[in-house]
Amino acid sequence: MSTERIWTAALVVIGDEILSGRTQDKNVAQLASWLNVQGIRLAEVRVVPDVEAAIVEAVNTLRARNDYLFTTGGIGPTHDDITVDAIAAALGVAVEHHPDAMAVLERYYATRGGLTEARSRMARVPAGAALIPNRLSGAPGIRWGNIFIMAGVPHITAGMLDALTGTLEGGRPVVSKQIGGWMAESEVADILREQERAHEGVAIGSYPFFRDGKVGANFVVRSPDETLVDRCLADLTAALEGAGRTVVAGGI
Amino acid sequence: MSTERIWTAALVVIGDEILSGRTQDKNVAQLASWLNVQGIRLAEVRVVPDVEAAIVEAVNTLRARNDYLFTTGGIGPTHDDITVDAIAAALGVAVEHHPDAMAVLERYYATRGGLTEARSRMARVPAGAALIPNRLSGAPGIRWGNIFIMAGVPHITAGMLDALTGTLEGGRPVVSKQIGGWMAESEVADILREQERAHEGVAIGSYPFFRDGKVGANFVVRSPDETLVDRCLADLTAALEGAGRTVVAGGI
Repeated sequence: MSTERIWTAALVVIGDEILSGRTQDKNVAQLASWLNVQGIRLAEVRVVPDVEAAIVEAVNTLRARNDYLFTTGGIGPTHDDITVDAIAAALGVAVEHHPDAMAVLERYYATRGGLTEARSRMARVPAGAALIPNRLSGAPGIRWGNIFIMAGVPHITAGMLDALTGTLEGGRPVVSKQIGGWMAESEVADILREQERAHEGVAIGSYPFFRDGKVGANFVVRSPDETLVDRCLADLTAALEGAGRTVVAGGI
Repeated sequence: MSTERIWTAALVVIGDEILSGRTQDKNVAQLASWLNVQGIRLAEVRVVPDVEAAIVEAVNTLRARNDYLFTTGGIGPTHDDITVDAIAAALGVAVEHHPDAMAVLERYYATRGGLTEARSRMARVPAGAALIPNRLSGAPGIRWGNIFIMAGVPHITAGMLDALTGTLEGGRPVVSKQIGGWMAESEVADILREQERAHEGVAIGSYPFFRDGKVGANFVVRSPDETLVDRCLADLTAALEGAGRTVVAGGI
């Protein structure tokens, strides 16, 4: 019986380009993997358009019920970048130019045509914010309380996450191990269900696929407790082999 | 001044595998592109875990405020497939085995080891539902009112969307055209803002990138009215060229 605290985060992906199908999002998977290493669970994601009311609703709902809230997208220099204004509206605070961000941008654009008014938009933050360093393109990310405002371009977001590594309190990371086999998941559904029921605190996920003309599945066992994961994996393997199945350690 | 009706849809992506970072979602982009051809706008997306309360909340909120609601994931034969039960709970209806789905599955599994109890789970639907054909793997999708319950595996979802093509009422599809150039978006932010303001009913998106060691951007002009798109694109091109920029038709 585990009563350990589970730390959660939510993500709001902001951008018409995701909802129009123009751009394939990469930030959900990237943030999820990074959070897991920090011992924080990604509990929910919303994708919203470049519309202030939609951003405000998502931000206020999700920041209230998670330990951390991340946003990606909409912090560039153009007219369709409205994330900072929308989050300031959600928080009920003013927007101001952060002096350190102005200094960073002045240095960055000194050799790139100068800090124009449009570029100085990227120094705008909700009043009271701190900055998240961005080694790649000058314009920083923004931290305000438990909210982390990140870039939309995945490799820039990656750099910002790098800067945050190890700074957020979390719990034990979820340990995840898998086995696989050339079998239809429907053939072993009862075994999966029984094994999950028999191992409290462990979740078993079943992920079927069709490859090289054959049906197969991987079974992923997850828990923050590695001992439980290993025990469940061993029992599941034994149960599948007992039913005449060939199990591939590590998955297929 | 346009008063034409805009049809909207929302998507609930159901699955721990997306939130854990194990699986990269492909259904958001796929559904968005398909919806656009139907003249329906993808207005919002939520990604929720395999937890009934989370699915119920997302489904009930989003179906009330959109013309259509789609879900992907969680309709397979295993214990972690809880979408049908959760949606039935959201709707306040019972779960039943759909006779046509049972017939489909009996035929499909006749040469594949027979229709076991686990497999017959894939015939369960919220009471009153209709089926969406699935040519690829037997188990059908489900339609209940304005809710469309689809597979998680992208190519199976694609087949279900294919079966729905042309059957959902929509408006005019959004026309989307782009130009590009080797310039930083921050250098032309004022031009973009002015051009969007000068063309009512048109949205201009700015999508920067960094490629072959050079900074560039594509500018996407969107509207259901192709005449407006073309006029805005021509004016934007002229304004950029007037400022000494080289514009690449069709984008980079």
